[in-house]
Amino acid sequence: MGRIEEIWNGDRLIGDFGMKLLEARDGYARVSVKVEERFLNAHNIGHGVLLFAVADAAFALSVNAVTDAVGVQWSLNVMRAAKPGEEVIGESRVFHKGRQSMVCELTVTAGDGRVLARGLSTALPVSRQAYAESASTKKAT
Amino acid sequence: MGRIEEIWNGDRLIGDFGMKLLEARDGYARVSVKVEERFLNAHNIGHGVLLFAVADAAFALSVNAVTDAVGVQWSLNVMRAAKPGEEVIGESRVFHKGRQSMVCELTVTAGDGRVLARGLSTALPVSRQAYAESASTKKAT
Amino acid sequence: MGRIEEIWNGDRLIGDFGMKLLEARDGYARVSVKVEERFLNAHNIGHGVLLFAVADAAFALSVNAVTDAVGVQWSLNVMRAAKPGEEVIGESRVFHKGRQSMVCELTVTAGDGRVLARGLSTALPVSRQAYAESASTKKAT
Amino acid sequence: MGRIEEIWNGDRLIGDFGMKLLEARDGYARVSVKVEERFLNAHNIGHGVLLFAVADAAFALSVNAVTDAVGVQWSLNVMRAAKPGEEVIGESRVFHKGRQSMVCELTVTAGDGRVLARGLSTALPVSRQAYAESASTKKAT
Repeated sequence: MGRIEEIWNGDRLIGDFGMKLLEARDGYARVSVKVEERFLNAHNIGHGVLLFAVADAAFALSVNAVTDAVGVQWSLNVMRAAKPGEEVIGESRVFHKGRQSMVCELTVTAGDGRVLARGLSTALPVSRQAYAESASTKKAT
Repeated sequence: MGRIEEIWNGDRLIGDFGMKLLEARDGYARVSVKVEERFLNAHNIGHGVLLFAVADAAFALSVNAVTDAVGVQWSLNVMRAAKPGEEVIGESRVFHKGRQSMVCELTVTAGDGRVLARGLSTALPVSRQAYAESASTKKAT
Repeated sequence: MGRIEEIWNGDRLIGDFGMKLLEARDGYARVSVKVEERFLNAHNIGHGVLLFAVADAAFALSVNAVTDAVGVQWSLNVMRAAKPGEEVIGESRVFHKGRQSMVCELTVTAGDGRVLARGLSTALPVSRQAYAESASTKKAT
Repeated sequence: MGRIEEIWNGDRLIGDFGMKLLEARDGYARVSVKVEERFLNAHNIGHGVLLFAVADAAFALSVNAVTDAVGVQWSLNVMRAAKPGEEVIGESRVFHKGRQSMVCELTVTAGDGRVLARGLSTALPVSRQAYAESASTKKAT
């Protein structure tokens, strides 16, 4: 099984949200999700978490296509609301791939072309061993 | 029904995630969520989206306690992984409440005190009418 | 005197840094600055503040070309170092112009095409009166 | 000469801005700067670049007190304007010190206690050799 499939199938949240994989290759990924009833906020529009989630799924695929990496920073501007029932598309493009970090451009658009959100995110390459251990670090600073 | 209850009960994603309201008052809120199986990523740890979601729920409560406001910007640093099965707590504190914008400090901690993530977020006061209409804006730029 | 000239001539820091205006129109601006000796950090490369400054100057021009606006949020990723003596170019493109906020894409490049930094920034429209008064607000929260 | 002195004396921009070192130790630093005429923007208030600069100087000291590190990401919210002639103080506190990254909390206050800006910043540990070489990387992606 390839790296993309491993991430896609192993990620339980992606599955639970019912996301669809539109495209994924080294340094680029595009994912869609439907604004279902369960993803609405108190104002009856698509939740900000949904926009973050679809961008983050694309981010994970785009950086993990080549090496194990973990996201450490996200900056997201949300400009427009997602409508109930529509499909929204998250897109991530790696524009910096250094030895120590990768930086991505994130875009969330609706089917009719409205740009709903844009962001930047940073990932660090990491060994799977180190990543698993990070969950058992005891001490907070 | 008070403003806090209105947000809490009306937000479908908060309900779907099984979040618990720990505290909410003007300018401050604290929410928890359990790292269920469905919230794990491909590395078998809590998904970054879950950390964002619990911080965002606290954010929404803290800013909407007094006036209708919509989140427009999030900056989030994730430092540690959430373990399967544990409870994580999202906390938002409004530290700037201006006429044009509100700015919050976000913190996500695990039950044992590990700080998992920290962030800043910005909300703009908005009329409900304007907010609903933003979902029907046609043109992307 | 036009709005662009007013900002450009009135901004003392832009003048002090010796920036050059390459292009400025509604929603877009491009500015350059030389990595002089006084802009080097302890590692003998261009200071991060210089990259921020040239991006911020472009940001101010791009949003103030049409209306008075004040920057409230900046997210900046720096990927590469600026070399002593080279010219670096800051560019800002407004990609969201709402009634309540404007959001820009910032890019800093070197003369040879290396992308040094990228960012997003948010501005709020503001009356000049309100802006001047914000400097005299007494109370911190 | 200690690490703090090396950064402080070697950083030409810190010197050019006339900053004062108030405190610097492992994981914490505080720096001040005066809002001189040359740091005013077109609205006659302290430039956003000045607020960024004083926070960034504290950031550099706080992370470089122990190891060589380079800043890669800054998120900054500016809430209030700095008045001509007043002193502003930049403060950085490292709240995460991992093997792969350090994350800091940044605060900019005025002498009368007004909080002008808050931010988060991320640094990566780096060898001086690698850092110097980054300035000569040719290819942009």
